[in-house]
Amino acid sequence: MAGNSFGTLFKLTTFGESHGTAIGGVIDGCPAGIELDLERVQEELDKRRPGQSAIVTQRKEPDMVEFLSGIFEGKSTGTPIGFIIRNSNQKSKDYSHIKDTYRPSHADYTYDEKYGVRDYRGGGRSSARETACRVVGGAIAKQVIPQIAFTTYTASVGKISLEKGPEELDFSLIESNPVRCPDPASAEKMEAYIREIRAEGDTVGGTVQCVIKDVPKGLGEPVFDKLHAQLGKAMLSINAVKGFEFGSGFEGTRMKGSEHNDKFNPDGSTTTNLSGGVQGGISNGMDIYFRVAFKPVATIMQKQNTINSKGEEVEMQGKGRHDPCVVPRAVPIVEAMAALVIADFFLLNKISKI
Amino acid sequence: MAGNSFGTLFKLTTFGESHGTAIGGVIDGCPAGIELDLERVQEELDKRRPGQSAIVTQRKEPDMVEFLSGIFEGKSTGTPIGFIIRNSNQKSKDYSHIKDTYRPSHADYTYDEKYGVRDYRGGGRSSARETACRVVGGAIAKQVIPQIAFTTYTASVGKISLEKGPEELDFSLIESNPVRCPDPASAEKMEAYIREIRAEGDTVGGTVQCVIKDVPKGLGEPVFDKLHAQLGKAMLSINAVKGFEFGSGFEGTRMKGSEHNDKFNPDGSTTTNLSGGVQGGISNGMDIYFRVAFKPVATIMQKQNTINSKGEEVEMQGKGRHDPCVVPRAVPIVEAMAALVIADFFLLNKISKI
Amino acid sequence: MAGNSFGTLFKLTTFGESHGTAIGGVIDGCPAGIELDLERVQEELDKRRPGQSAIVTQRKEPDMVEFLSGIFEGKSTGTPIGFIIRNSNQKSKDYSHIKDTYRPSHADYTYDEKYGVRDYRGGGRSSARETACRVVGGAIAKQVIPQIAFTTYTASVGKISLEKGPEELDFSLIESNPVRCPDPASAEKMEAYIREIRAEGDTVGGTVQCVIKDVPKGLGEPVFDKLHAQLGKAMLSINAVKGFEFGSGFEGTRMKGSEHNDKFNPDGSTTTNLSGGVQGGISNGMDIYFRVAFKPVATIMQKQNTINSKGEEVEMQGKGRHDPCVVPRAVPIVEAMAALVIADFFLLNKISKI
Amino acid sequence: MAGNSFGTLFKLTTFGESHGTAIGGVIDGCPAGIELDLERVQEELDKRRPGQSAIVTQRKEPDMVEFLSGIFEGKSTGTPIGFIIRNSNQKSKDYSHIKDTYRPSHADYTYDEKYGVRDYRGGGRSSARETACRVVGGAIAKQVIPQIAFTTYTASVGKISLEKGPEELDFSLIESNPVRCPDPASAEKMEAYIREIRAEGDTVGGTVQCVIKDVPKGLGEPVFDKLHAQLGKAMLSINAVKGFEFGSGFEGTRMKGSEHNDKFNPDGSTTTNLSGGVQGGISNGMDIYFRVAFKPVATIMQKQNTINSKGEEVEMQGKGRHDPCVVPRAVPIVEAMAALVIADFFLLNKISKI
Repeated sequence: MAGNSFGTLFKLTTFGESHGTAIGGVIDGCPAGIELDLERVQEELDKRRPGQSAIVTQRKEPDMVEFLSGIFEGKSTGTPIGFIIRNSNQKSKDYSHIKDTYRPSHADYTYDEKYGVRDYRGGGRSSARETACRVVGGAIAKQVIPQIAFTTYTASVGKISLEKGPEELDFSLIESNPVRCPDPASAEKMEAYIREIRAEGDTVGGTVQCVIKDVPKGLGEPVFDKLHAQLGKAMLSINAVKGFEFGSGFEGTRMKGSEHNDKFNPDGSTTTNLSGGVQGGISNGMDIYFRVAFKPVATIMQKQNTINSKGEEVEMQGKGRHDPCVVPRAVPIVEAMAALVIADFFLLNKISKI
Repeated sequence: MAGNSFGTLFKLTTFGESHGTAIGGVIDGCPAGIELDLERVQEELDKRRPGQSAIVTQRKEPDMVEFLSGIFEGKSTGTPIGFIIRNSNQKSKDYSHIKDTYRPSHADYTYDEKYGVRDYRGGGRSSARETACRVVGGAIAKQVIPQIAFTTYTASVGKISLEKGPEELDFSLIESNPVRCPDPASAEKMEAYIREIRAEGDTVGGTVQCVIKDVPKGLGEPVFDKLHAQLGKAMLSINAVKGFEFGSGFEGTRMKGSEHNDKFNPDGSTTTNLSGGVQGGISNGMDIYFRVAFKPVATIMQKQNTINSKGEEVEMQGKGRHDPCVVPRAVPIVEAMAALVIADFFLLNKISKI
Repeated sequence: MAGNSFGTLFKLTTFGESHGTAIGGVIDGCPAGIELDLERVQEELDKRRPGQSAIVTQRKEPDMVEFLSGIFEGKSTGTPIGFIIRNSNQKSKDYSHIKDTYRPSHADYTYDEKYGVRDYRGGGRSSARETACRVVGGAIAKQVIPQIAFTTYTASVGKISLEKGPEELDFSLIESNPVRCPDPASAEKMEAYIREIRAEGDTVGGTVQCVIKDVPKGLGEPVFDKLHAQLGKAMLSINAVKGFEFGSGFEGTRMKGSEHNDKFNPDGSTTTNLSGGVQGGISNGMDIYFRVAFKPVATIMQKQNTINSKGEEVEMQGKGRHDPCVVPRAVPIVEAMAALVIADFFLLNKISKI
Repeated sequence: MAGNSFGTLFKLTTFGESHGTAIGGVIDGCPAGIELDLERVQEELDKRRPGQSAIVTQRKEPDMVEFLSGIFEGKSTGTPIGFIIRNSNQKSKDYSHIKDTYRPSHADYTYDEKYGVRDYRGGGRSSARETACRVVGGAIAKQVIPQIAFTTYTASVGKISLEKGPEELDFSLIESNPVRCPDPASAEKMEAYIREIRAEGDTVGGTVQCVIKDVPKGLGEPVFDKLHAQLGKAMLSINAVKGFEFGSGFEGTRMKGSEHNDKFNPDGSTTTNLSGGVQGGISNGMDIYFRVAFKPVATIMQKQNTINSKGEEVEMQGKGRHDPCVVPRAVPIVEAMAALVIADFFLLNKISKI
């Protein structure tokens, strides 16, 4: 089964290469009768759009989504929601120089090895452009579960970390700065660092934090489709992601059981939440929170030695307009994938018991 | 779709509760004509078995696997391989005291919330006993891809970490100590620490590292079923796992692109391997390596306050024989899940191109 | 994906060969909290059992089902229901004579061609013995949807057809004769004909009719998973089935639209039901009815010329105890598959709309 | 799982309503490196197009397919192939009169019951317009398996049947008449009958026959995904289909085993082919052939009484331009679905054995 679909009942299938005619997708399994606010979908897409601020790629891509089916008189009809996003600004010539060249730490080499052919224009299918379709799917998913609140923000850029935990932060400040960090002081440092890195023609990684509030109890399908396992897969499937942890995460491995166990309150909530809102793969009603690790963007503006498809050493240098740090634009993608996972489990849980 | 199956072409479905008649599973999609060494399957199961050393639970469970189908005259027939493991040593009475009690940071509460009923005997379906079936599935998977080498070991116990990287280690020493750490000096410290923790009636977490060598190029199915995304889901679906990272992982987020990019050699291999053997979700032929975070076991031998199903405060204390640290017994489980993922992608990749 | 699973949410996976240790299965996705009457499951299994009457195979197979998981204190727990049926009466020697021989119109040749190996003992996986597991799955499925009534019976044996339609029949008479035909006069003719055929050492085919009453409106998932399309697949997956028709079926192709259209009553029911209870792939609340065609059993007691695996001409003759007509024992299998389809769509339909 | 995808490895997902912006689909799992002849795809689409002859609907729909992804420099890239067909000729006003009216034997009523909302314009999702996407998918599937030959034709219209079997026919004559019947004499009668029926403002049903030659041995995935079971589901999922039979079909139920068994030739072929090229759910290398039953089109030009959504009796009469007999235009759809099934099993069979 080629891997271009995600989800069981609420399922997103995407298609499209960065420089083909269009990218797009099909959302199958959206229940009927949901009032869909398509402007909100476009707004979420705009958060991912290139050129939105000084610290992201300056490429001009309007990224307008066109819905083709599954919506009638403003409501979902229960039939598949097809959509496309035209690639209006293809600039294929920008990429001709990499036709036979394998960019270091990109997917050029592995696609050629796997498929024997490759759409070399701007990374083709392996380009993060595909994630625009995920944002569309996630924006629809959120409207299936409006009672659940998703908040996502930048937690670190390179070595600069946000020291505060979710409860200490004012989420209303996330969109107040181009880094999407709710702590203005940290945001300033991060932004300055990204500018510095860009001046060097280099790139840097970072982490994204997501917090999901008001999650019903019971979401998740043990034993293999545990809630956090599916969340982890969703995040790891995003371009440039190297790691995922939820609740106490890697830090929790250093703790003792007596410190780590979350004590119950009489109402079933817990006094601490090192579990991250999930126990035994099922949501317990507490906030779900997790962190996602993004590596530095592989395309840098410095000269690099690499090889071509004949195995010859060649020198290359990034052209065009790329992100010095992917994290600010990754924020809406992480949130979209989280919404896809939660919406799917929300529907699955409707049939857990008679 | 209830989540008790894993894999697309090479698919494992498991069933069974810790204290029911038996646990078992079905392996569907194993190609025909493979000579299966069933003793090796039992050997891998023995690595997970309780009572194998002084630092793991002293429960007596023989865990003998009985194969029921799909194998004829020593070979796989292409039909489903059914198997069961009888629960010979049920001791249900040991668990009667938790019938109405929710153990902190266990799945008791969430199972009741999701299903409305719960097999309270020893955790029922949420018990790690289910992972014995994963070890059986993984042991068969390895025999489908004998050319690929899996090595798994304990990388940390609590705050005690193995400082050496895979290339500095002698893997032949992994089984030389009960902790399954290939560095004798670290192993000794870890073992001493586990004994100390157990004496306190407490538990501790840790991390497991897996290294996969001789992986063919081309494994993985972008965009959603990236090789590392499926590995991550596999690991996160194991009981007590809180995080997953591969290649440079979370540390990679602090690096610059110019440091992080893996330079190509003329043969397509890379001089460094921060990518962890995967680029764009597809294996590139370099070693795949990843780390898995395990929280401390929730069952401790100290008194804890908790609630019962009526929401009343009750005091409880772990009984029976539990693991002070799950990591040594988790090693074969991590390896089994990795083998299931790789075998599945190995088969899927046979049809990537004409 | 090897094809040993059936269903989306309510999913049955089966394993086992006719002469292996055991056959069995896993039912995943059964909602929690259902009081399960396991004696009724065994009763349905007994309707399929060999040796139940003078006109079916006289093989002695007790076919006792043993449930291993997923049921606690008489209720489904929402976890997978594993079960096995031991093959108590293997008589492998009966089959040694066909080790290298391909029986005409059996699966011996195609299994060898597909898999390169074959469990030659009594047909192995291709034996209709596997359908015992379907009856178990179907019997559980029925208990998930007790409000829906399934009735299944023999409609023809060879050229002897039941001339009456469902509404003219007294279903309480189905079990009053070994043929399972609700019309005593036809049943007598059919039984006499089967005895005659058996005396010739020959076999004969027939058709089975199923009627499903009290089906909720809205079951079925267009466009590919139409209710009747999934029913058709379910029936065609039963051994020896050659055709499927529902509602007006093949006869309907000879009619005009003005004759064939079902007129509505004000309450949405229809005055006629040539649609067979399904319109556009979705149930409309009218009775669902369909017919299934079974070929004559391929194993006959007469001498036949055939080939062995070396392509040499050999003479063979059926041994052991076989069915002269499969239809009476197929009745519970058809009903079980129908129940699996309806239960699955019943669950799927719970999430069609908000 | 909403039912808008078909196939396991070679998977088609479709979307779109008859009068929305566009219909379209995604073909996921097409192996890389296949030279794709897109003009041939359009040619097959033209065989289904309205207005192609005097005996089909005179609606003007150009049905031009636009491919959006997955094809580069004339070859499949292994990434999903997205495509759309714009609905250029929507004429929504033609359908306003049925907004609240349930057409007899259409899906209007069941869609409203299932989803609570309905795109009433021309049947919306339940319109046979969706099958244009299947023809696109099938045309690509054929190019994955060019060695396999598909032939499909009209076998009956109403009571007028083609008496000759496949071996007696000259398939080159199929496209020589608008009925798509390879026997000119029968074709003439069928065409005359369709004209007569249309003059009455009525419609009529018929059957389509498909013959598949040069099928490799080993296709099909027992036990549930038998080759003929999946073919049956594929055909039954086509609008207006009421039945499916393969090989000897319903007629075979009247035969004796001694007449029905196919004798082997030394090379493994059989002297007769009542099995229809499939034994035990797996292809045996002989021709696969099957018949599909189509009911008369429900939209007739005569006055009919029906009900509206309030349950009130109303009179209606078909408007617009409809098919008096769907069979001639169904021929390419049946062939497309057959190609989708065979291509999928062709890929699945590559991993049946080591």
